[in-house]
Amino acid sequence: MTCPTELDIPDIADIHLAHARIRSKARVTPVINDPDLDEAVACHLYCKCENLQRTGAFKFRGACNAVARLAENGRGGDVATHSSGNHGAALALAARLDGRRAHVVMPEDSSPMKVEAVRRYGGQVHFCAPTNAARAAALEQLVREGMIPVHPYDDPAIIAGQGTAALELEQVVPSLEMVITPVGGGGLIAGTAIATGAWGVTVYGAEPAGAADTAASLERGEIVDDFHPRTIADGLRAIVGKRNFQVIRDRVKAVLTVSDDDIRASMVLAWRHLKLLIEPSSATVLAAIRNHPELFAGRKVGAIISGGNIHPAGWLELTRTAGGGD
Amino acid sequence: MTCPTELDIPDIADIHLAHARIRSKARVTPVINDPDLDEAVACHLYCKCENLQRTGAFKFRGACNAVARLAENGRGGDVATHSSGNHGAALALAARLDGRRAHVVMPEDSSPMKVEAVRRYGGQVHFCAPTNAARAAALEQLVREGMIPVHPYDDPAIIAGQGTAALELEQVVPSLEMVITPVGGGGLIAGTAIATGAWGVTVYGAEPAGAADTAASLERGEIVDDFHPRTIADGLRAIVGKRNFQVIRDRVKAVLTVSDDDIRASMVLAWRHLKLLIEPSSATVLAAIRNHPELFAGRKVGAIISGGNIHPAGWLELTRTAGGGD
Repeated sequence: MTCPTELDIPDIADIHLAHARIRSKARVTPVINDPDLDEAVACHLYCKCENLQRTGAFKFRGACNAVARLAENGRGGDVATHSSGNHGAALALAARLDGRRAHVVMPEDSSPMKVEAVRRYGGQVHFCAPTNAARAAALEQLVREGMIPVHPYDDPAIIAGQGTAALELEQVVPSLEMVITPVGGGGLIAGTAIATGAWGVTVYGAEPAGAADTAASLERGEIVDDFHPRTIADGLRAIVGKRNFQVIRDRVKAVLTVSDDDIRASMVLAWRHLKLLIEPSSATVLAAIRNHPELFAGRKVGAIISGGNIHPAGWLELTRTAGGGD
Repeated sequence: MTCPTELDIPDIADIHLAHARIRSKARVTPVINDPDLDEAVACHLYCKCENLQRTGAFKFRGACNAVARLAENGRGGDVATHSSGNHGAALALAARLDGRRAHVVMPEDSSPMKVEAVRRYGGQVHFCAPTNAARAAALEQLVREGMIPVHPYDDPAIIAGQGTAALELEQVVPSLEMVITPVGGGGLIAGTAIATGAWGVTVYGAEPAGAADTAASLERGEIVDDFHPRTIADGLRAIVGKRNFQVIRDRVKAVLTVSDDDIRASMVLAWRHLKLLIEPSSATVLAAIRNHPELFAGRKVGAIISGGNIHPAGWLELTRTAGGGD
C-alpha cells in the first residue's frame, strides 16, 4: 500500500504574495451593491465584478500569478494549456505581458468567438479532435516540445491567484458574513476559501445541477470523475481538481446546485439591475442565493461574478425563455 | 432695449455640495482603463462608467441633487418632468428615495422598455401625443396641479449634480490632461467643465453629426433651436439649454461631431475591450477620440461613459453593420 502524496495547497500568505505579483497587470474590479437587486435577492449583496476583469474573467488572476512565478523561478519559455474557455485567453494575455507565448489546445468545434479571443490576446491555437484523449495527447506533445504546462485550476499558483479577488472584496466590504462563488474545476472557490479563512466568513459554492460533480463528490467523500456534464454554464463543466476538492471538503460550508432555468432568470436579473451581461456560470451564484433564503435572507453576502464572456446574441438566445428578450 | 437676464450657473462649490448630498444614494461608479483599448484609441483612456450608475445613466446624479435641494428648501410634494429617456427613470428613483412621486410625461410612442423603467423606479407615466407642443402642454397641466417641474438639463441643481461624475474621476486619476463627455442638452458637459475648471484640464464635447445643434450654436454664437435631429444616439437629440450653452461657450475647448457609423463602431469597441454594452450616446466620446488623433494621441484622457440603457437586442441591431454580430 502506498501512502497518498500530500498535495501542495497554498495558504493565505501565498494569496497575498500573488496579489503583490499581479497588481500591476490585473484590474482591481469594481464591487457593486444595488438596493433594488438587494430586494430581488432578499439580502445585502456585494458583487465582485470579475466579468470586468481583463480578458473578461477572474481567470486572468490565476494565469498572471502562475506566469509570474515561473519568471521568479527563472523558468523562461512558452507555456501551454488546454482550454475551450476563459483560461486559454487569460493565459495568452498573461504570457504576452511576460514576453512569452501561450499555446492553447482547443477542440476543433470551439466557438469562433473563443478561438478569436485566444488569438487576440496573442495566444497560438492548436486544434484537436473534440475528445479528452485527443486534448491530453495534444498537450503532452507540446510539453514534449519543451513548453511549460499551466493547469486551469489544479495548481497552487492558479488557486492563489484566483483567491486575490476575495482579498479585494474584503478590502472594500470588510464585514461580509458569507461569500459565494461558482464551482467548476474549483480554482476560484478554493482560492476564495483560503483567502477568507481568517475572517470568519462562511463560504458557499454554486454549481449547475447538470454539472454537479463537486456536490456528488462531497457526498461520496471522493472525486466522482465519471461525470457527463449537461448545462448551459459552459465555464463549469470541468471535473473538480484534487487540490480544489480537498480545500472545498475542508473549508466550504456547502455547494448548492441550481437549474439551468434558475441560471437564465438570474442572467436577466443581473442585466436588469446591474446593466451587466454575465455568463451563465456567473449567474449560478445569484440563483443559489435566491433559492436559499433560509441561508442568505437578510445577510451581508459577497458574490464573485466570475465572467462576462458571452456574446450579446448568445445571451439573448439563452435568456429568451426567462424574459431576456423583453 | 432690455438687458439679458443673468443666468444662475453653479460653481465648483455647488458641485462639491451636490456630491455631499447625493453620496449616500448615487453609486461611485468604476473608472476603467484597459491597455488594449488604449491601443485601439491611441491614448491613455480612463472611462468613468456612468452606464453602471443607478438607473443606468449619469442622470441619476442630477435628479438626486435636484430633489435633495427641494427637500433642503422645505419644498415637499411630487415632481414632474417630460422625458423619453434616462432623466425620467432617474427622477422617478430620486423622488421615490425621498418619499415623493415623480410624474413623467412621455410620448405615446416611447419604447416599452423606457416606459417600464420609469414605472419600475416608482414613477407615474403620463402619455401625450408625440409632439413638443403636446409634451409641453401635458407638463404645464401637471405643474398647474401643484407639481414641481425638474428640467432635464437647464437647471443649476441638475448641472451641479452631473458635475459630480468628473469630481470622482479626478479623485481616482488626478493627472488627466483632458476630459470628454457627450453633449445633448448639455447638463453633463456643463457640470464637467465647471468641476474640472480648477485643474487645468481641457474639456471636449462629442455630438452626433445628426444632432450637432451645439456645434452649430457655437459657430453662430447663439442657440440654434430650429434643429431636427437625426441620429441613432437617442439620448443626445435635445437642443442645448441656455445655461448649458453659456458654460460650453465659455469653458469647453470644442464640440467634436461624429457620424452614426463611428458611433456603431465604438459601441463594438467598448463591448470587445470592456465587456460593457453602452448606449449610442456614450459611444460618441470614443468615436471623437478615434477621429482626432491630433488632439488626443498619447494623452491622458478621461471619458464619461454616460449610459447603458440599451437592450441587448437593440444593441445587436444597431451594431450589426459594424461587426457587433460577429
